Parts: sequence; C-alpha cells; structure tokens
Amino acid sequence: MTELQAPAGRRDPGGAEPISVAIVGATGYGGGELLRLLERHPWVRIAALQARGREDESIAGSHPHLARTGHRVDDALPAGVEAVFLALPHGAAAGMVPALIEQHAAIIDLGPDFRLSDPADYPRWYGFEHPRPDLLARAVYGLPELHRQEIAALADEPVRIVGAPGCYPTATLLAIAPLARAGLIADVVVDAKSGASGAGREAKAELTFSEVNESVRAYGVGGHRHVAEMEQELRRLGWADLQPVDFLPHLVPMTRGILAACHVRASRQVSQAELDDLYSEAYGAEPFVDVVGTAPATKHVSGSNYCRVHVRADERTGRVLAIGVLDNLVKGAAGQAIQAFNILFGLPEQTGLEQLPLSP
Amino acid sequence: MTELQAPAGRRDPGGAEPISVAIVGATGYGGGELLRLLERHPWVRIAALQARGREDESIAGSHPHLARTGHRVDDALPAGVEAVFLALPHGAAAGMVPALIEQHAAIIDLGPDFRLSDPADYPRWYGFEHPRPDLLARAVYGLPELHRQEIAALADEPVRIVGAPGCYPTATLLAIAPLARAGLIADVVVDAKSGASGAGREAKAELTFSEVNESVRAYGVGGHRHVAEMEQELRRLGWADLQPVDFLPHLVPMTRGILAACHVRASRQVSQAELDDLYSEAYGAEPFVDVVGTAPATKHVSGSNYCRVHVRADERTGRVLAIGVLDNLVKGAAGQAIQAFNILFGLPEQTGLEQLPLSP
Amino acid sequence: MTELQAPAGRRDPGGAEPISVAIVGATGYGGGELLRLLERHPWVRIAALQARGREDESIAGSHPHLARTGHRVDDALPAGVEAVFLALPHGAAAGMVPALIEQHAAIIDLGPDFRLSDPADYPRWYGFEHPRPDLLARAVYGLPELHRQEIAALADEPVRIVGAPGCYPTATLLAIAPLARAGLIADVVVDAKSGASGAGREAKAELTFSEVNESVRAYGVGGHRHVAEMEQELRRLGWADLQPVDFLPHLVPMTRGILAACHVRASRQVSQAELDDLYSEAYGAEPFVDVVGTAPATKHVSGSNYCRVHVRADERTGRVLAIGVLDNLVKGAAGQAIQAFNILFGLPEQTGLEQLPLSP
Amino acid sequence: MTELQAPAGRRDPGGAEPISVAIVGATGYGGGELLRLLERHPWVRIAALQARGREDESIAGSHPHLARTGHRVDDALPAGVEAVFLALPHGAAAGMVPALIEQHAAIIDLGPDFRLSDPADYPRWYGFEHPRPDLLARAVYGLPELHRQEIAALADEPVRIVGAPGCYPTATLLAIAPLARAGLIADVVVDAKSGASGAGREAKAELTFSEVNESVRAYGVGGHRHVAEMEQELRRLGWADLQPVDFLPHLVPMTRGILAACHVRASRQVSQAELDDLYSEAYGAEPFVDVVGTAPATKHVSGSNYCRVHVRADERTGRVLAIGVLDNLVKGAAGQAIQAFNILFGLPEQTGLEQLPLSP
Repeated sequence: MTELQAPAGRRDPGGAEPISVAIVGATGYGGGELLRLLERHPWVRIAALQARGREDESIAGSHPHLARTGHRVDDALPAGVEAVFLALPHGAAAGMVPALIEQHAAIIDLGPDFRLSDPADYPRWYGFEHPRPDLLARAVYGLPELHRQEIAALADEPVRIVGAPGCYPTATLLAIAPLARAGLIADVVVDAKSGASGAGREAKAELTFSEVNESVRAYGVGGHRHVAEMEQELRRLGWADLQPVDFLPHLVPMTRGILAACHVRASRQVSQAELDDLYSEAYGAEPFVDVVGTAPATKHVSGSNYCRVHVRADERTGRVLAIGVLDNLVKGAAGQAIQAFNILFGLPEQTGLEQLPLSP
Repeated sequence: MTELQAPAGRRDPGGAEPISVAIVGATGYGGGELLRLLERHPWVRIAALQARGREDESIAGSHPHLARTGHRVDDALPAGVEAVFLALPHGAAAGMVPALIEQHAAIIDLGPDFRLSDPADYPRWYGFEHPRPDLLARAVYGLPELHRQEIAALADEPVRIVGAPGCYPTATLLAIAPLARAGLIADVVVDAKSGASGAGREAKAELTFSEVNESVRAYGVGGHRHVAEMEQELRRLGWADLQPVDFLPHLVPMTRGILAACHVRASRQVSQAELDDLYSEAYGAEPFVDVVGTAPATKHVSGSNYCRVHVRADERTGRVLAIGVLDNLVKGAAGQAIQAFNILFGLPEQTGLEQLPLSP
Repeated sequence: MTELQAPAGRRDPGGAEPISVAIVGATGYGGGELLRLLERHPWVRIAALQARGREDESIAGSHPHLARTGHRVDDALPAGVEAVFLALPHGAAAGMVPALIEQHAAIIDLGPDFRLSDPADYPRWYGFEHPRPDLLARAVYGLPELHRQEIAALADEPVRIVGAPGCYPTATLLAIAPLARAGLIADVVVDAKSGASGAGREAKAELTFSEVNESVRAYGVGGHRHVAEMEQELRRLGWADLQPVDFLPHLVPMTRGILAACHVRASRQVSQAELDDLYSEAYGAEPFVDVVGTAPATKHVSGSNYCRVHVRADERTGRVLAIGVLDNLVKGAAGQAIQAFNILFGLPEQTGLEQLPLSP
Repeated sequence: MTELQAPAGRRDPGGAEPISVAIVGATGYGGGELLRLLERHPWVRIAALQARGREDESIAGSHPHLARTGHRVDDALPAGVEAVFLALPHGAAAGMVPALIEQHAAIIDLGPDFRLSDPADYPRWYGFEHPRPDLLARAVYGLPELHRQEIAALADEPVRIVGAPGCYPTATLLAIAPLARAGLIADVVVDAKSGASGAGREAKAELTFSEVNESVRAYGVGGHRHVAEMEQELRRLGWADLQPVDFLPHLVPMTRGILAACHVRASRQVSQAELDDLYSEAYGAEPFVDVVGTAPATKHVSGSNYCRVHVRADERTGRVLAIGVLDNLVKGAAGQAIQAFNILFGLPEQTGLEQLPLSP
C-alpha cells in the first residue's frame, strides 16, 4: 500500500462543490434506501451506482420507485469518488475496501465487515478470516450516539472507515446504553421483532408473501450474529463483567420496522425517576433519539431516521424494561450511514435526513 | 340456592342423544369460533346462540362466514341446556353462572372469571370483587394438559365449572410446564406476540387496520392480567419460590396466532438431551401438543387446536429458551374449551377438533 | 395403448374399502391442500405423495403444518391407486396421464392440461402442443355446477379424466353463468383480485413479502391464460356470438382468496327481480354456491369450498355487476377437485368438504 | 358579505415572509399528511392546527409520529392566516368556508364540498343542499394536470377556493383524461382498489385489522359518490355523449394506495403507438405523472405525490386498458392539495413535495 495522504477532510457547508459519492450494492434494499435519501441530500452528488453483473442498466429495473432519478447501475466503479457507501453481504466489503482506501475514498460500510474490532470475532461469528485486521483497528463503529467524536475525528485520518451498525444492535444499544453506562445491568434478554425487509432482497422460499403473512416465528435461535456487536459495545460502555446477551429475533409480517424489547435484571434497585433522568441526560440533545412515555410502535418512525426509546421500572418484578424501535432500513441501515457520513464530512448531522415518519 | 342434584354425568359416545349446548356471547370472535367448531361436533346440538340486545337475528349479521349454519341469535337463553359456553368480557360470566348452575348446566367459561382460585386475585388484577368465591373454589382451570383428571372428575359433581385458560397463559404454560415441574426455572421472561383478534371484536381506534398494519408495539407494560394465571399455575407445578413472571405482550400485524418466547434462567446447568427427555415425557402422548425441533411459526397451527412447543438449551448463554405457538382463537380459546368439554362429558378428547391447520 | 377395461366405477358409500389415492406434486400449495382435505376424507386412503426429486422425505419438510399426518413424499408413484390427483405446472400432467390411464386410475388434474377441449388452444395459450388430443376429447371440465352429469358419467368410462378448473375461471363462471345461459351478456369485463398463494410456491423476487405487502398491481395484461377456459365455457353456456372477455387479474397483499368482479353490459334491460330469480334457480340447490345480498368478502369463504355470488342490476348505468368470491386453494383448486372426485366415485358431493370457513 | 379585497396574490419565492397556513381537521389522516408535508415546506409557516373539541392538545396525542414537530391542536382557529387547508367530512367545509373567505384566506378543501360545480349534485350524491352555490361557481376543481391555469388565475381573485379532487377521481382521471380528450371512450368500467386509510380514521367494526386483513371486498356497489366528480370532469374533457361511468371500488388489505383499472371500450380502433403519443403529449412535462411501460404497483409511489399511468391497447379484445396508481393520502389528498396551493401562490409546483416514494 502506498503512503496515504490526508483526505480532503471536513466540508464547508457553505462551499460550492458537492461531495461525490458512490453506492456499492445499489440494487438491494439498503442500496435503494441510500439512493432515495442521498438523491435529496443537498451536499451530495451521486457519482455511481454499482452492482455486480449490471451493465449500464436503468435504475428502474431494480428500484422502480426511483425511476425518476434517472440513474443507471453498472458493474464498474469510477475512480475518484470522495465517499463510498457499501451495502453488501458479509465478507464482500472487506475485499473491496483496501483498494478504495488507496484511492482516498471515505468508506461507510453498511455490512458487518468493519464493525467488530477483534479480528477473532469474524471467524467465530461470520465464518471468515478478516483479511485486513490493520484496517479493522482503524475503523469506527458508526453509531453516532455512542461514537460521534470518533467518527468526526476520522476526518483528519488517511484511513476513513465507518462500520455502520446492524439494525438489531442499533435498536438494542440505543435502548439500553444508558443502563449499561450506569452499571445497572445484571443480565439482559433482548427479544426483537423485525419486518421482512431486514432479511434482504434475495428470493427465498421462506420469505415469500404466503409464508411470511399471517405468521410470526423466531429465527437465529442459539446465536444471531448481531450479538457480537451488541456485546462489544456493551463492554465498551462499561459493563465489565458482561453476561452473554440472550438475544432472540423474530420475523413478523410487516415490511419495515424493528422493535427490540430489552428485559433487564437490574444490578440494584432503580426507580422510574432515576431512569427518566438517565435517559433524558443521554438523549435530551440527540437529533434522532426520542425518549417516549408510552410503549412506541414501529409505525411511529417508519421511513425516518428516528429511534424511539421507552424505559420502565417494573415495581412488581423489580426489573427494568427498555424498548427501542426504528426503521430497519433507515436508522437501522441507510439513514444511520448517512448520519455518520454527515459527521465525518463536517456537515450538520441531520442533513438529508429531515423526512418525518410516514404514518399510517 | 336449592340443593343441586348430580348431573347427567359422562355421555356414552354410542348413545343416541346429542348434548344440547348454548353459546353465550355468540357474536364475538370467541363465540364465532365456538359455533364454527361445535356446528361440526358430532355429539353436540346447538340449542341457542345468545348475545345481549339481539332479537332473533340471523347469524349472518355477526358472522357472515357462518351464514350456512342458519342459526339465529337472541338475547334470551332457553332453560334446560346441558352445557353453556360463555365468551364474555371479564366480570360478566361471574354474574350469570350461578343461575345456570341452578339449572344444572355444565359451564365452560372462556373468560377469566373462573380461572383464579384465590378470590383476592380478582380485585387485584381485574378490578372487581368476585361475587361467588364458593364457586371459584369448585371451578377447575381448564388446561387439559395440566388438569385433565380434575376436569374429568367434574362429571360427577353437582357444580361443573371449567375456567378455560387465556391465550397467553396457554402458550406460556405449555412451553415451560415441564421446566417448572422439574424445578428448573430460576426466573423467566415471557415475551409474547399476538395477532389482533386477541383484542376482541370491539371497534377501537388503535385496532383499525391502518393503525395495526405495518407496525409492532408492546402493550400492557407493567402488568398484563394474564400474569395472574401464569403464576398460579407455575406455583401449582411446583415452583415454590416463584419469582414474578416478567411478561410482555406485543401486537403484531396478523389476525390469528400467538407466540410466547420464554427466556428461562435455569436453576442449574441443563443439557439439550435432558430437555428433550423432559418434553418428550410430558407431551409424547398429548393429542394437541407437538414438540418440534426447529422454531415453530404460528402459521403451522392456524385454525387448529394444536400447540407447538420448542425448547433449546443455549450453551453460549447457559440459558433455556422455550417457545409455544398456537391459534389464539382455537387452542387459546374456543378449541381448548371444547377439548375440556369433551373431557367433562366423557367423549374422546379430539372430537370435533380434528381439523388440520390451514396453511399457507 | 392396450384395450382399457371398465373401471371399478361408483363406490358404495356403505362399502368397507376406502379409495386409494395418490397426490402428484404433493409439495406445492395445491398438493398441501389436497393432503389437508383428503387426510380427513372418510372414504379415502392416501396411498402416496409424489414429488419430483424427493426420496422418502417427511411431509414436515414441505408442509410443516401437516407433520401430524406422518406421510412421506417420494419421487416414485406406486402402481394400483384408484385415483390420482395431479397438481403440476402446465404441460407436466399431459405427459404423465397416459401411463396412469393404462393403470386404470381415475385422473383429477388440477392443472390446465385437460381443461380445454380444442387442442389448438394449447399452443396458443400455453405454448405447447398437446400430446394426446384423443384424451382431451374424453376429459370433462370439472366444474360441478356446470358439468355434474358429465363428471358422474365418467364413472362408467374406461378413460376417466377430470380437468379441474382454474381459480379465476371458477369465480368468474359461477358469477356469470346464469347470465350467459340466459343470453344476457353483450360484453363482459372481468376484473379479478387474487392472493399471493395463487402464484404458487416457487421463490420469485416479485413474490417476496416485502414486494407484495402494502401494494396492489395488475399482471397478465393483454391475455392471462385463464381466458381460454372462460371463453370455452361461456360459449358452451350458449353465448353464441361471444365477445372476447376483457380479463384483468391483480395481485393483492393477502395469501388466500379470489374476487372476480364481472362488469356486464347486458344485451337487454334486466331487473333485479329477474336476476334474483335467475340466480336462485341456478344455485338454490347447489351445496357450495351461496347467492348473497351484499357484496361478499373473500374472508367469508376462507379455508372452505364455498363460493359466494352477488349480482346487482345498476339502474343508473343500466349494467349488471356480478361478483364471485372463493378460496383459490380450495374451491379454486383442491376442494373443487375433491368435489369432482366425489361425484365421479358416486360419493355424496360434500364428503370431506364440510369445513366451515375460517374467519376472522 | 362585505366587499372582498384582492388577496396578497402570488408570492415571490425570493421573499422573506413565509405563508401562514392553518390545517382544519388536523387530527385525521388527511390532516396528519398535511402536517407531515407542510412542516417541511420551505415557504410555509404552520399557524394553527384545528380540530373540533381539542383544547391546546399536543400533536403527539393524535399523530404520535409527528411528535417532534411540537405543534398543538386546538378547537379555535386564529384569524389572519393566509391559507386554510380543510380536511373534513362532507358538508362541514361548506359551512366554515364563507367566514374564512371574509378573512381573505385562500381555501384548499380536501373534502367534496367545492368539487362539483352543479349545486344539484350535492343533494343527489351527498344528501345535503349546498349552502353557497355562489361560492361553488367560483371554486376550481384542483386537479393541476387538468386545471393548472384556473388554479393559478385564482391568485388575482377575491374568492380563492380550490376543491381538491377525491382519491379515486384523481387516479381515474389521470389514467383516462387523454382518451377522453381525444374522444376515444365509448364507455368505461373503472374497477378500483384502495387501502384502508382511504376510509378515514374513525373506528368502525368493518375497518378493524381482523376484518380487513386477508380479505378483499367491493363496496359502494351501485353508486359511489366519487362518480359525480369523474363524470363532471370527463364531460369537461370533451366527452359529449358521456355514458354513465361504471365505477366499483374495493377495499384491499393495505394501508395506503389506490389503483384504478379503467377498462375502456374505444369509440374507434386505436393502436398502441397512437396511445403512446397521446399520453406522452399529455404527461411528458408533468412533474408528478409518469407514464410507465409495465403495469405499475401502488408501492412504487407510496408516500409520494407521484401518479403512475399505464395504457395498453389490447389487440385481442379491441379494448383499451388504462391504469392509474397513487398514494391516496398524498397525490390523492394532502400532496395534491399542496400542489394546488403552490400553484395558487405562485411557488414552484413541486415545493415541499420532492420526497421520493418509500419502497419496499
């Protein structure tokens, strides 16, 4: 690898030039959401939509709803883009990123390849050896509410990689981060529910409408990969004697939305007032996290980058319930990636993410 | 109350006379399912469909799908029926049952009024004083898999009342009864998901299609009434130092189905082989409970009286996951009531409940 | 072909021997419904479940909801079964049937290969030359409401083939047959809506939950294959100067159900009273067709073999609206096939089809 | 009525002052969508959200997803707003508008009270006498694609009332306006499908999730009110010898979206090339209408102000099929109202409506 020069760094929002970006893996659901949002981002110029095996194909072929954008999809990726969003299956980004880094592109990876800082987690949870542990070490876990400063600090680095969090970890971590930071968790059961778009776009027999509709089922019993991220971040938040997170995801018959119900056995007695203070302090200034007083519905954040968090001390059981809801394709994927991108480029964090939720 | 005589008792399935039954609260979803199933029950004659305020109204008005049955609904309830199924809001059955008992009718109550043996539970969980604690003491909790003998023994009693379990308790108890009986539960988090029919048929703003569709939300945070039943039965199963059950139900966008995911902290290390033995022993001979090796979907039991149970020891967390799924309107309501009725009248337990699940 | 002997003919319902049947194409949705219903059919013994490439596989693999039946699926088909139900893609049955006929099996084909009596229709609508026009000529279109006598008459024939109608033609023909027979149709627009199970079970990108949910779209614009059947039968009903049927199907976000709205320009003024008489006469004695006074919902017949028909003279437009609804997998496929089977074997027509609709 | 002065007229988009607007009927679905969109409209200041019986209530009470806007709802309507959007049941706006006109407010009415220019249509279709036929005569039917000039011309009028079209008429008229204008329609069957949000927000038994889910049904058989608008506009488009429109709406199990399939018997032979030219000419420059080459899905426009139109000459039948799809709450209600508002105030027509569709 040649010596990397310092990047262009932060962008002056008053400047004239938009930031040129590429979307890799543009034909999936994550790619579609990136396009939907970035197309309206006032500081972005979409330089390329990439997808394997496509040759100058109209975007209408993969995303009919975005036909008006007039973009085209191609296998090739032009050189010289300033930022690359990758929306790929695990293992694929790790192979592409080194070359992009050489071209001085900032990387925002929506997949898991740069989320875990311990290289040993990749063979364990994802079944592959990470090819570049040195890059892993420089990547930042892109949850702005926990790592805003580190994302911003990347601006001055020659290697700029954000590993944008998974959908389940985002909902879970935002729900219980204040508890973890306060040392209040003895153990936690995370029971999560997701819409079908979280499973991606590939045609699979178990994801056809007739199979998913009018049904609920758990999956990933005994160890969903997202547990790795959750435990990494809970440990970083100060949960020293971390107990393994008991995480169970469910597929529910809806397209978008995640709800993570976090059942916490508290390490000590805690009052609702104390919880209210903790959460208000943690999220009072956050642009995309709302603490709400009643159990939130995923519909309340659909299509938007907002996450809603609800926390409740249960006097009868002595336990704490924390719920997080978000749109898995926005705050759980494309929106969060753009939020990190904004921070990295010194733009106001909400740029391009101002859309209000769509309901009903 | 006049002295009650012994009832007709068990029915000889080879006998000529069908059992005359009435359905009280016939216009709701529970009532509709009772009619759908009892109409095809070879040992039953439906003598009356009752609903408050109706006057000789065609069944097509409330249950268009059952128009072919030709039944009519009326406010009045004829005397002399042998068994009465009650599908009413809480508090209503308690008021009606004494008179029916005087008429020597066997009672199968689908509501909560005769489920809890401790009268103090009614003001606490349901907000009313139970008017007849003496009848409570004689009622049997109608979960055949736990109380088959007691239901059958009612046949010889002058007072025959079955309090058919709630939908959530049925799914939960069938999922974890073997663990409770074996003393394996240190504490349990029950995270449940239900279709909208569980909320009944009343028109409410939060249950319109536009609000429920494409959304998931928790409700009943901090104490759903069904906890009372769960804890009563878990204690009866031998969990002496019962910890309060952490129960959280969710509304998911489907019509039928309940899934209860029971996250158990075990009281000691337990292997999958031991769990397999426990569950096989508990349910191997049960006509309506199937232990399955992969996480079950609610769709696999839709429209039927079957419950599927899945249990898994998680080596990583040291915890046990037990899942129960059923159709909330059948095994969670009408079907289970008929199952208890069959036992009470000495009929083969599966009579009238032979329908296979409807899928997709 | 060797000389065929007369078949066993009609079955005496009081006889001791059940009829041995096989289901070919048992792993699809049509096959699953056949199994669900035939398993509870009192005169049937399921001798074999066949599906290409399967080797003694548990039914739980393809139809988890039917695991209790304990059946197994195999590629091989045993000789000697009395009746074979075929649930196969078009073109496949035509190849298999001759050998089955040689074995004296009665054939009930759920696919299109034996529905059209004019061999020229196959290359035109289905893109293949029919290999056995001689068998086509002996097959009966299996809509009992139109061809009951012909189906029954097959019992005495050496070649017994029923081509069970498609789902759309069944809903359409039952809705407008009385009008066609009375010569009342000048032209007709059939605008139909189907649940996703009608598209079969194959995993296709456009049939995933995320694509189908919260969306409606037309398909088959300019000529859906089912038009061929509709026009064949409308001509047979006496519509001599048949105008091409304008048929447009839609995919709606539900699993089961078909609604065919037939917009008829009448050949002369017609009153509601006249329509009521026509339909009452046509269907008053039909076991599975109900004429209803208000626009029916597909939910009113779900899981059952019933079809509901509604007809309305519109004074303002001078036109006639006829609507038919049914469950595409039951009256539109498996149930109807069993209904024809019952007729063919001299059994009461409703045998095994007594299930009431499942609603909500 | 005092003499009305000329209004402020067109707004200079470069000017400093936003336009103050009020939303009347803010708690319904139409009101919610108006708020969602107007809150992000760069030229608008929301001065008031009105709803009957509310007293300084948080918007979170009626629209939890819009809690972040911080608005409050009140029964009172402040004087002096420049534009009022009314989202009310029929009959209600007609009573309120006169006073608002006196206050020089521009009116954009999402209900039917100012859509029909013939006062006789109100008793006939809506069951009330219109109180102000003089205002009716000055109102403009707010379909920009048909009446753009007339909406813009209102800017200089003392009475400015836009009667924004209904959802079904918008989809229908955009689908067939080019045919009507070219004199190509002999008669037309409009078979439409709508999501449940089109029925409004009131809790009704037939709109609960359990009733709507997994079901399709027609409604409004024999004369839906929207026919009046359709026929008025088709006549204006030049269809002199208008035949009554055969219109049939259906409720399908989705929340948003309308699809109108218009089955046209053409007045003469017409080729696909001619249709392509007609539609390209009609809509080539339209900001919100896209002519597409394959049958469109409602999902392709969800959450956006776009309408997609597909037209096809059917050689086999000699008929023409025209399909229009849109989001009933946006292009069918709030978005279209804002589009007209933009025109009326001289703003770029797409202002505040730039959101791309949300899919999947």
